[in-house]
Amino acid sequence: MYDSISILKDLVKKNDKKIVLLVMDGLGGLPYKGKTALEVARTENLDRLASKNECGLIDPVFPGITPGSGPAHLALFGYDPVKYQIGRGILEALGVDVEVKKGDLTARGNFCIIEKGVVKDRRAGRIDTEVNKRIVKHLNKEISTIEGVEISFTSGKEHRFVVRLRGKDICDEVTDTDPQKVGEKILKSIPTSDKKSAERTADTINKLTDLIIEALRSIDEKPNAAVLRGISGYPDLPQFPEIYKVKAKSIADYPMYRGLTQLIGMDVDRTPTCVEEEFSVLKKSYKDYDYFYIHIKKVDSYGEDGNFDEKVKRIEETDRYIPEIMKLAPDVLAVTGDHSTPATYKSHSWHPVPLLIVSKWTRISGVSGFGESECAKGNLGRIPSLYLTSLLLAHAERLDKFGA
Amino acid sequence: MYDSISILKDLVKKNDKKIVLLVMDGLGGLPYKGKTALEVARTENLDRLASKNECGLIDPVFPGITPGSGPAHLALFGYDPVKYQIGRGILEALGVDVEVKKGDLTARGNFCIIEKGVVKDRRAGRIDTEVNKRIVKHLNKEISTIEGVEISFTSGKEHRFVVRLRGKDICDEVTDTDPQKVGEKILKSIPTSDKKSAERTADTINKLTDLIIEALRSIDEKPNAAVLRGISGYPDLPQFPEIYKVKAKSIADYPMYRGLTQLIGMDVDRTPTCVEEEFSVLKKSYKDYDYFYIHIKKVDSYGEDGNFDEKVKRIEETDRYIPEIMKLAPDVLAVTGDHSTPATYKSHSWHPVPLLIVSKWTRISGVSGFGESECAKGNLGRIPSLYLTSLLLAHAERLDKFGA
Repeated sequence: MYDSISILKDLVKKNDKKIVLLVMDGLGGLPYKGKTALEVARTENLDRLASKNECGLIDPVFPGITPGSGPAHLALFGYDPVKYQIGRGILEALGVDVEVKKGDLTARGNFCIIEKGVVKDRRAGRIDTEVNKRIVKHLNKEISTIEGVEISFTSGKEHRFVVRLRGKDICDEVTDTDPQKVGEKILKSIPTSDKKSAERTADTINKLTDLIIEALRSIDEKPNAAVLRGISGYPDLPQFPEIYKVKAKSIADYPMYRGLTQLIGMDVDRTPTCVEEEFSVLKKSYKDYDYFYIHIKKVDSYGEDGNFDEKVKRIEETDRYIPEIMKLAPDVLAVTGDHSTPATYKSHSWHPVPLLIVSKWTRISGVSGFGESECAKGNLGRIPSLYLTSLLLAHAERLDKFGA
Repeated sequence: MYDSISILKDLVKKNDKKIVLLVMDGLGGLPYKGKTALEVARTENLDRLASKNECGLIDPVFPGITPGSGPAHLALFGYDPVKYQIGRGILEALGVDVEVKKGDLTARGNFCIIEKGVVKDRRAGRIDTEVNKRIVKHLNKEISTIEGVEISFTSGKEHRFVVRLRGKDICDEVTDTDPQKVGEKILKSIPTSDKKSAERTADTINKLTDLIIEALRSIDEKPNAAVLRGISGYPDLPQFPEIYKVKAKSIADYPMYRGLTQLIGMDVDRTPTCVEEEFSVLKKSYKDYDYFYIHIKKVDSYGEDGNFDEKVKRIEETDRYIPEIMKLAPDVLAVTGDHSTPATYKSHSWHPVPLLIVSKWTRISGVSGFGESECAKGNLGRIPSLYLTSLLLAHAERLDKFGA
């Protein structure tokens, strides 16, 4: 696999061509009664485009690897998902819409139950989210700074929360406090480097653990402690608009995808709450940007739920917006997913993802429609997701020749 | 991407099997009225071979990357085009048939017009090639050595020329004198390393610039100076016959392809001036070599010109020689291109290139003919050009097993 960013940065050039990347999260599927959700869905607009343009399949990492949303998206944006890894704490924070900036640390937390320091239940019986919210409110009141480091808690679902540390001289070179199993003591965080900031951070984390236990004593809730894992800093990622010389707009209605595209420097619109509003943001901002990322979440959600029929409906809903995109006449339109989420598998999977590229410079796949089986016959073949960005830039005539 | 050379060198073995690689430059295309030039061309011989052997598509670098001829060819010969890069000056020199050897430096030059040291026209109004030849003749008479470094000029087209420096203690670690835009002074070449030879070279380049200006004063031509760029040395490339244990013959009628294959140690035939003569060289030398590279230039040239019909004709012309190759009964025949040059795009492009492999050990693609769409359905799928050489050696039974 080539380090595409280091090669592309010397080849990209600006022009006025526009690229739209439409990502249906978890698009790829598996057959149920012989056909996948995408194949069952009536998608006349995508089918027509597929028959007259290029189709293929993309692999987020490599065959057999089931990616999380972070690596799957990084690959779509041309970032090698093995080279560029985003810490779990940061991804969790982005998922619950925590504001993070350079220098911040974040960690995933579980409210748990301990007895004499030993973890008895890592999830405190999966407490209600409402209980979680009461606890977090209390903690934010009780614990605001530790020796100059600002502490801030945000609720997740059930027993999950995110803690953000903000201050000088802290870094993510420390270990977790979560022993990851019951019957063991909450771990002491220890520095994994000899940096002063690592020592200071481990010390802060350990004090934080004690302060949480103390604060929980004063309210009448089930959890009496918390364990932390995935302590991670704001990643230093190459910035998408700089490396690719595009003005990039991110349009998503879920926090994680907004956060992730913010990490790579896209201009994130935080207004849409549904697919319809996403497409109206596209129309409104169309003249001001060169590259648009539009994220459709629900296709994945219903895949995860094992709800085949609703996955079909969400794909059909998205298809109905295709004419609106085509009315804008982008120079390049790509429609794909970040990964597969077959409703029969009820989870992200490793299966390659259908891809459609529409541009005046495509060959013609001559397939009968947009679906897994047809894309497997498409002329793009099967390529790593990592190379999607170079393909889109090429179709937008935004790449110079490599070598003479 | 694996470093194929380092792996192959331990696996290759000699035998008496013969490989012919027929490269139609810029073979791949885009549909015009629904079909590409290769698809429109009546290529009954290639079509018959395609239907009974293996087809696929190859990527010179990676999807989206448009390669120059240098990297595209290196990939065909199994050299990673990102790892092995050939300097622009050397490629330009090879293109105008300058004889280069180890230790030489070459640079691309433009005859230009300056006023008070500032570049007013980087191309001196695109002077006629005839004017260029008169100037080069004059310069070769006036400037032959600078402090022991031999200087030699060769005309290119219009305002372009190549200068070769030959001598001891020179190296390519120096900057260009070409400011690449008008309104700026000719740059001083400066060493980019602290090597003595870099300092000496920069000094020689700067003296050369002054001597050219002085020499041009004494003739009545429009240009009054020259700018240099892409100063590069003879690259130290692994030698094809050594790493692959083959006696390799290069048959091309254009200087650049002769020069490029000479750089990797092939035995270059410099006699052919057209396709017909290329194939008679093949026949004459057939018994003396194991590996033959035959290059058909005009397919690319007409692609670059946007002349779809002539591209079709040149492909058809090549097809008529296929029976002559088959009469020689090579153990392996591969027909492909170095990159795509769609006549509709009038330039090299990023689209993958059709590949046909004929051998007794192929699977059968069962396609209807040799073209982009059929190759996309072929059983070879889409692979990097880099792996073509290992495939051909394998089909020639010239590779041992990897590991036990």
